[in-house]
Amino acid sequence: MVIILKQHPDETQLGSLMDWLKKQNIQVTPTVGAHQTILGLVGDTSSIDMDLISALDIVEDVKRVTEPYKKANRKFHPDDTVIEVGGTRIGGGSLTLIAGPCSVESEEQIVGIAKAVKASGATVLRGGAFKPRTSPYSFQGMKLEGIRLLLAAREATGLPICTEIMDASQLPLFEDIDILQVGARNMQNFTLLKELGKTKKPVLLKRGMACTYQDLLMSAEYVLAGGNPNVILCERGIRTFETYTRNTLDLACIPSLRQLTHLPIIIDPSHATGKSALVPSMCKAAVAAGADGLIVEVHNDPPHAKCDGAQSITPAAFDKLSGQLRAIKEVCGEDHRDVII
Amino acid sequence: MVIILKQHPDETQLGSLMDWLKKQNIQVTPTVGAHQTILGLVGDTSSIDMDLISALDIVEDVKRVTEPYKKANRKFHPDDTVIEVGGTRIGGGSLTLIAGPCSVESEEQIVGIAKAVKASGATVLRGGAFKPRTSPYSFQGMKLEGIRLLLAAREATGLPICTEIMDASQLPLFEDIDILQVGARNMQNFTLLKELGKTKKPVLLKRGMACTYQDLLMSAEYVLAGGNPNVILCERGIRTFETYTRNTLDLACIPSLRQLTHLPIIIDPSHATGKSALVPSMCKAAVAAGADGLIVEVHNDPPHAKCDGAQSITPAAFDKLSGQLRAIKEVCGEDHRDVII
Amino acid sequence: MVIILKQHPDETQLGSLMDWLKKQNIQVTPTVGAHQTILGLVGDTSSIDMDLISALDIVEDVKRVTEPYKKANRKFHPDDTVIEVGGTRIGGGSLTLIAGPCSVESEEQIVGIAKAVKASGATVLRGGAFKPRTSPYSFQGMKLEGIRLLLAAREATGLPICTEIMDASQLPLFEDIDILQVGARNMQNFTLLKELGKTKKPVLLKRGMACTYQDLLMSAEYVLAGGNPNVILCERGIRTFETYTRNTLDLACIPSLRQLTHLPIIIDPSHATGKSALVPSMCKAAVAAGADGLIVEVHNDPPHAKCDGAQSITPAAFDKLSGQLRAIKEVCGEDHRDVII
Amino acid sequence: MVIILKQHPDETQLGSLMDWLKKQNIQVTPTVGAHQTILGLVGDTSSIDMDLISALDIVEDVKRVTEPYKKANRKFHPDDTVIEVGGTRIGGGSLTLIAGPCSVESEEQIVGIAKAVKASGATVLRGGAFKPRTSPYSFQGMKLEGIRLLLAAREATGLPICTEIMDASQLPLFEDIDILQVGARNMQNFTLLKELGKTKKPVLLKRGMACTYQDLLMSAEYVLAGGNPNVILCERGIRTFETYTRNTLDLACIPSLRQLTHLPIIIDPSHATGKSALVPSMCKAAVAAGADGLIVEVHNDPPHAKCDGAQSITPAAFDKLSGQLRAIKEVCGEDHRDVII
Repeated sequence: MVIILKQHPDETQLGSLMDWLKKQNIQVTPTVGAHQTILGLVGDTSSIDMDLISALDIVEDVKRVTEPYKKANRKFHPDDTVIEVGGTRIGGGSLTLIAGPCSVESEEQIVGIAKAVKASGATVLRGGAFKPRTSPYSFQGMKLEGIRLLLAAREATGLPICTEIMDASQLPLFEDIDILQVGARNMQNFTLLKELGKTKKPVLLKRGMACTYQDLLMSAEYVLAGGNPNVILCERGIRTFETYTRNTLDLACIPSLRQLTHLPIIIDPSHATGKSALVPSMCKAAVAAGADGLIVEVHNDPPHAKCDGAQSITPAAFDKLSGQLRAIKEVCGEDHRDVII
Repeated sequence: MVIILKQHPDETQLGSLMDWLKKQNIQVTPTVGAHQTILGLVGDTSSIDMDLISALDIVEDVKRVTEPYKKANRKFHPDDTVIEVGGTRIGGGSLTLIAGPCSVESEEQIVGIAKAVKASGATVLRGGAFKPRTSPYSFQGMKLEGIRLLLAAREATGLPICTEIMDASQLPLFEDIDILQVGARNMQNFTLLKELGKTKKPVLLKRGMACTYQDLLMSAEYVLAGGNPNVILCERGIRTFETYTRNTLDLACIPSLRQLTHLPIIIDPSHATGKSALVPSMCKAAVAAGADGLIVEVHNDPPHAKCDGAQSITPAAFDKLSGQLRAIKEVCGEDHRDVII
Repeated sequence: MVIILKQHPDETQLGSLMDWLKKQNIQVTPTVGAHQTILGLVGDTSSIDMDLISALDIVEDVKRVTEPYKKANRKFHPDDTVIEVGGTRIGGGSLTLIAGPCSVESEEQIVGIAKAVKASGATVLRGGAFKPRTSPYSFQGMKLEGIRLLLAAREATGLPICTEIMDASQLPLFEDIDILQVGARNMQNFTLLKELGKTKKPVLLKRGMACTYQDLLMSAEYVLAGGNPNVILCERGIRTFETYTRNTLDLACIPSLRQLTHLPIIIDPSHATGKSALVPSMCKAAVAAGADGLIVEVHNDPPHAKCDGAQSITPAAFDKLSGQLRAIKEVCGEDHRDVII
Repeated sequence: MVIILKQHPDETQLGSLMDWLKKQNIQVTPTVGAHQTILGLVGDTSSIDMDLISALDIVEDVKRVTEPYKKANRKFHPDDTVIEVGGTRIGGGSLTLIAGPCSVESEEQIVGIAKAVKASGATVLRGGAFKPRTSPYSFQGMKLEGIRLLLAAREATGLPICTEIMDASQLPLFEDIDILQVGARNMQNFTLLKELGKTKKPVLLKRGMACTYQDLLMSAEYVLAGGNPNVILCERGIRTFETYTRNTLDLACIPSLRQLTHLPIIIDPSHATGKSALVPSMCKAAVAAGADGLIVEVHNDPPHAKCDGAQSITPAAFDKLSGQLRAIKEVCGEDHRDVII
């Protein structure tokens, strides 16, 4: 942490700041210039409140120079986190393919799609039971019945299940679910994150639509700090001024997060683009950039899907894509390890 | 709603779309051009799923031309909503001043500040008991004890209390609180919004940091649709590329929302700017723009506040400001009614 | 400037960095911690290239802690810049009202509007002769004839003229113009800025739609560094996700820029909102926040304006507004001086 | 175009709008509902000014449903534009590799890098002679001497040259240059675009950092409308809230622009990320997504580059990358044609 003092700071106030920092076991080195003094701070600054220091009369600005997350930080945990769930491994050089419909609609639908995507190489089944919708008048999901049908599809195919939890109070309903998805709008629902930290369930944490890598890692830190090491990061597009795509897929997050953290990184091109025609090329790009996996909406009849049909690809398209993804991964080899420090 | 068809749409598919729309009681008028056909739709389109129509092969694009919110819409509810709470009126031309510290820290602190701001004209007391913090290592509020102290301050001053609720499960703890604040990060926590819709408590709903007016009004619609008409909208700054201020305060929301909705509009310059030196000028600007009120952080000792001290003004600064705000409101007179249609 | 080193930096590389910095007359103080070393730099770092240092293998990050602009910086120039032009003073506590149509359309139109706005208290006439339009098929302005008509309006009213220059090569055509406006899309047209720096003409520099205060001040620095001290800053809205307004007017720029710079700050609510119904409330808010002035589109017949009619107010609306603005300025008194350090 | 009327529009005003539209050869079909009337417009609406119509009292909103660009539009020009320059073809399924240093620094440097990148498969040499810098105190390029050295490198290698033009007045200096680059900050320098439209030189047009696909295509339209068909689009990252990368690379622009336009699409991962460690993975991702080519900064000694060293890769890294890119392109085959309508 670096504190920039105003010109000619009051000596007494400066003294009491220095004393207080020392009591927090922070080592301070001043650099004194003609127009300004910089205080360099080292030690564990993660619990120092920047706002508190900014409020002091003698302080012009405060800047963090270390990441405020510890458990998610690759510096203190150099090896990749690998999560084993339902017979598949997520992270550490594997290629996880999570596929399925936006919403569960019927047993026939979800079991049928599950079988199709498994045959094409999917390793996890996705499907929404509780749906967060911006309008109270839109279809809100099959809820508990949706959970039951997802478990039937697991029974039929052996694929582990990933589905979205919307609130801490729903946790008992998700007891048999393999991977709990936290949606982008809930990325900073700290009550939910704390409760998930008390379980050992793998959590697929989606990046909020206006959040930075650091914001995402701080939310992951909530789960990790609670004692649950099984966090999977998911990029699903951020809000930008572009309106042709629903969101803008930030693929540079892959090598960037690779450097900052040891957690697996999964890409969601379906929600990011909102247009099925763009999904295959973004899947290929994500794998070429070194993603640990993808989460893709696949629907047998997109025009009649109960929600988000516009962004779903067909099982046939997924099948073609799957082969290309493995070929691209082969071309890239161990490149994704290059950026690791 | 307007549907733009691709060039040379398949006749059979077009026929089945037209049939389906008629079954939904939607009236359709086509405009046929050389390169494109536009279908104009009128009727109740609020439950028509745009994604579903976008997914059709024959459709190039779909655009909404009416607002998807009804109960929050001024068109269907021309008169201002006025909320009466604890002896004060919010909305309808009054000037609500909500003031108090970011966090409740002690009985002495909260009662002392409550008395000071009341003497300067505040009509509601604010103070955080449960604090949403981006870091799990930061102070998370006094929680239940904070609620108890807020009620003691109400007892001592008669000011109604506004404090933040973070999760639907906390509702029983907030039974005696006058106004429930929903934070910006929870603006799209639909589970929480639905539960708040089942109560009659006034809800102060903060705009999410990357959300539009329509997003905000759709979240308000969740509460209204549940049966609770007491929603207060709050602008607290949106995320932009500027980093000098914490967020960017969007004051044009005041006349804009005035036109779109009948709900009261409150401005929070403290969180928007993050810097106490900017708060008074933004308060004056908000009142000049016609806001129904302000929510301002006031702390007796900002440098030693437990959180967000950098954005708190002192009781003395609030006192000076309060007089200016009333003078500006007088200059503007009934101007805020001008834009109402 | 602060340099954050990677863990265990190579000693030889570190030595050569230290030597190089000393040669640039930069004083360096290291703060050594267990996981990281911070180098605090003081001296004239404005010409140190951050990219160059970032590229070094031993460097993790580089952060500026002082502003990279000098001539625009209030720290080195504490008194307000006041620009005298055509008998009016801009900056230093005055209230400049620049008014007129988006485009000059005819002599009758521009002279008529000039007389009307002068009668209502305007101190400068605006009007576009060369128009930057996003479409090559839109009206591009009356060009040289527009300049001639603006001069005729000055002749008729005595009001100084402000109009937009689009390219360095146009300078000779603007010889008689009083204030040269640089549009938001040209804010980083460095060739143009350099040429304007060689003149003494007042330059009204509009903030780019995705630019920060620092970006704006760096562009001002180009003009100032060239030898022209007469720069007026203008906020005209920034791009955000909101689409109801054309842009989002950032009024917190007023007290913020007041602290960072000595240059006058003018607000343009017409381009910022794009809707005439929002203009009066934003004008009042800007004055309440301490702006040095406004630039407002006024048109005698908005629905038949050749461009941007939707955002123009009528002379009658301007007249009513003008009185309110002076009353608000009176309420605020000398407040705008409060934030000056 | 669609016009949404206010409730109960004045009959006379509506009549005169209808008459005026007919005079413009626009066919109008109204859809009348209980709360609103929609006018569907077909015909050539590209010259209809939306602002003018928005300003009418009876109009609530106006929406474009067709793209306002014609010459850049794939609908009216279904075949890919292929640009032949200096013996290489850009667009139409080829893979253009533009490589070289950010700035030309010396003859030895530029000729050396040119030879190295040619040997690794580059098809065009890039290098900056005139450099747009945000600070007036930064290195501004070797200017005319830089142009001379670029031509020497072309002489030595046969590679065509791509370099940035900053202002219309510089055109005579660029007479021998093969491809004129327009920087992101100049994307809406309409004076420059118009002048480039009068030449036949290939123009590499970079997307502005807060601009949409439509904004980019409207700027391309300026060049095309002037008579120059040789426009190459270039994505170089857009501004978002993420600060770890310099900008956010929007790779979904590749399949999106493929659908909207026939112009070639080139990706610049160096400026987009600002970090050399991220460049190779973003290059591979761009090719996997179907880009027509890349523009990459390559420098023999990045830490001593005169600008942007932090984002330059070495010739050795470029050489390894080049092979992988061709292998990925082979995997993807003719996929990039899939989205074309």
